[in-house]
Amino acid sequence: MDSKYNIVSIIRKKRDGQTLLKEEIKYLIDQYTADEIPDYQVSAFLMASFLNGLNDEESAALTESMLHSGQIVDLSHVSGKKVDKHSTGGVGDKLSLILAPIVAAAGVPVPMISGRGLGHTGGTLDKLESIPGFTVDMDLARYKEIIGKHDLVLAGQTAEIAPADKRLYALRDVTATVESIPLIAGSIMSKKLAEGIDALVLDVKAGSGAFMKTTEDAIKLGEALVGIGTQFDKETIAYVTNMNQPLGFKIGNWLEVEECIDAMHGNGPDDIMEITYLLSGTMIYLGGKAETVKKGIEISKEMIDTGAAFQKWLDIVEEQGGDVEMIKSPDKYPKAEYEFEIKSDKDGFISEMDSFEIGMASVQLGAGREKKEDDVDPQAGIVLKKKIGDKISKGETILTGYTNKPLAIEAASDQLFGAVTIAEAKPEEVQMVSYTIDKKGSRAFEL
Amino acid sequence: MDSKYNIVSIIRKKRDGQTLLKEEIKYLIDQYTADEIPDYQVSAFLMASFLNGLNDEESAALTESMLHSGQIVDLSHVSGKKVDKHSTGGVGDKLSLILAPIVAAAGVPVPMISGRGLGHTGGTLDKLESIPGFTVDMDLARYKEIIGKHDLVLAGQTAEIAPADKRLYALRDVTATVESIPLIAGSIMSKKLAEGIDALVLDVKAGSGAFMKTTEDAIKLGEALVGIGTQFDKETIAYVTNMNQPLGFKIGNWLEVEECIDAMHGNGPDDIMEITYLLSGTMIYLGGKAETVKKGIEISKEMIDTGAAFQKWLDIVEEQGGDVEMIKSPDKYPKAEYEFEIKSDKDGFISEMDSFEIGMASVQLGAGREKKEDDVDPQAGIVLKKKIGDKISKGETILTGYTNKPLAIEAASDQLFGAVTIAEAKPEEVQMVSYTIDKKGSRAFEL
Repeated sequence: MDSKYNIVSIIRKKRDGQTLLKEEIKYLIDQYTADEIPDYQVSAFLMASFLNGLNDEESAALTESMLHSGQIVDLSHVSGKKVDKHSTGGVGDKLSLILAPIVAAAGVPVPMISGRGLGHTGGTLDKLESIPGFTVDMDLARYKEIIGKHDLVLAGQTAEIAPADKRLYALRDVTATVESIPLIAGSIMSKKLAEGIDALVLDVKAGSGAFMKTTEDAIKLGEALVGIGTQFDKETIAYVTNMNQPLGFKIGNWLEVEECIDAMHGNGPDDIMEITYLLSGTMIYLGGKAETVKKGIEISKEMIDTGAAFQKWLDIVEEQGGDVEMIKSPDKYPKAEYEFEIKSDKDGFISEMDSFEIGMASVQLGAGREKKEDDVDPQAGIVLKKKIGDKISKGETILTGYTNKPLAIEAASDQLFGAVTIAEAKPEEVQMVSYTIDKKGSRAFEL
Repeated sequence: MDSKYNIVSIIRKKRDGQTLLKEEIKYLIDQYTADEIPDYQVSAFLMASFLNGLNDEESAALTESMLHSGQIVDLSHVSGKKVDKHSTGGVGDKLSLILAPIVAAAGVPVPMISGRGLGHTGGTLDKLESIPGFTVDMDLARYKEIIGKHDLVLAGQTAEIAPADKRLYALRDVTATVESIPLIAGSIMSKKLAEGIDALVLDVKAGSGAFMKTTEDAIKLGEALVGIGTQFDKETIAYVTNMNQPLGFKIGNWLEVEECIDAMHGNGPDDIMEITYLLSGTMIYLGGKAETVKKGIEISKEMIDTGAAFQKWLDIVEEQGGDVEMIKSPDKYPKAEYEFEIKSDKDGFISEMDSFEIGMASVQLGAGREKKEDDVDPQAGIVLKKKIGDKISKGETILTGYTNKPLAIEAASDQLFGAVTIAEAKPEEVQMVSYTIDKKGSRAFEL
């Protein structure tokens, strides 16, 4: 390796809190991708970056280097502004499955590359794969074909997309360097920018079930993401939304698909529909098919009411090999073998539902992964009967659990019981959206 | 790996500035030594420890775990209190070669395990190996045999001694995590405690040519080292000594052996003899052969004056396979092929001699290693004609360089020229020893 850069010097600079040159970051990422720099040096760099931070320029350089470690998809054959949405991940967060068909039905192409669940959060790919036959694995040619045909594609990360991020993410996962705002932002944006998008909407979750536990941290992450998007000339809007309780009533892969089908039939839970419409409305606005976000929301509602979104959903399920009959008649889906209920031990109001604990319990039941190699069970999960603010009586069911792992029920039950707090007084109403962040900055949300 | 400890949680704790349990540190070191934890996780831990620190208990636990990763040598067959000395490393630091024979000649056994040079500092082993035939590689049985026979052994680190430290040190070197006081202290003490010593003297260097650039940092390192020694019930005394210019006049492997032979003949430079006598006197005191350090220093001088130290040196060179004729007639040693001089461009006094730069120049000339795999050239090096405080005239030689790498001369000359500052006024006299640290604490040095 003949170069004017040296990996030990780069690590040392970051260790000492100095700012790295764009070329130094590019050198590190390029050589790592080329297997010229070993994992143990990169993990030292990651920990130094975690603890000493990366400034906006360093974060953009990291994103750009990871972006260029693979291909940037050319979607010029698809007319219109292509818009995607990304969520930082939560429990019961199934919004992509509802909003992508809405936005595509409204004429804005949605090239969506999603991830798998890890830890307490579910992943869009796992949910899609709970539909018998549905495939998310494809090469770029097929990806381009599907988006060209339907203004929509729901794919997994291909080997051509940001391979450096893929390696870096795996390394961060095993070296306790995941929860760093610049590293998270670089990882998200390098993948999204590679998809071939023109604009991006970000759903930055804050609360017990999110990576960012506080609204303050969520704003910081949102600002980092929007900052990178702006640097790459992609119009980017982020919303900070509530993840202090699971979204909707259902948690688990097929269970969430079921809830999405209901939503597309016009029967979605209020919290889900509020954020879905906000995000899809913003996407339609950014895609140039509505003059304002408000108008975009109205169009979104029309797409549900007219059945256009559901038809788009049926089309994409069929195109990607999924069993359309199962979508039309979700009752036919086989149930998990075991089911159990968690009941209240007192009268009162649900005042807290710790979504981290609920997410971890659903992992125990089989709905998620503890390790990357684990399989997920499409049938496992949780159905909430009550949410924060609901009145409950002693003996009444709070939630039902579904699993094929009977040995997991006891520990999961304890965890679920402990995750729910019942108070005497009715708690304040949950505010779903708190902040808007775009290139003009961040401010309290107001539609 | 079934355990109640988890490496990612351990890294995360240290990342978040929490204190690790002794058992967690032991788990990490044991599993790393057993190849159950990969380098990339340990390097993330090292960077987190570097930046967030390890407290005294963590540092002692690290030392103990590394110590017990290998054997602790049993020297009960050797009568008397065994005492060793360790230097944190400097440029021209050849003191071990002079003081070990002095102390052994005075009847205090010296079981000395040394290291190789890396970066700007030389290593005792490389100096010893410049003596034709001299071998430092041996197993523990041979190590015990030699010390039993001569009250002295000069060995390299065997595979049985603190193998965890060996791996950890190599990893720190390539991940920019070397200069951390608790990591340095743990590394030094785990090896020294494994040697079978009863007491230890530490020469903690401070200045441009030392790892610790400031006296303040050197005191901290000294306190960490003495703290660990005390925890392990080994009487330990540390001195903070000056490394703002090279020690003595000669830098380079055989060149330094030559200077040591002169010193053992009673012709050592003042700075070298001042610190050598202090350290050897302290060792003789700790070994119970003198009532005070002062008395130990007197005995040390006798060992030189009577030729007893030189005889001990001849004995150990012969025992370890070295060419005794070369020690008796060092003029016979072959010279380096190229030699060059650095001359002053003005009249004045030498006011600074940056020993880091001089050390790095000697590496360029072949006397040291840039990478661990590099060979060292026994003939290469630098001979100073002047030192700080000396008067110099324009055109007069400051130093002479010796090398077998003619292409290195130009860059090394520039570096050497830049390393020397000449001022109009005579600078203050260099104070060689500034602090004493023992279990009673640290205080200004006073004999």
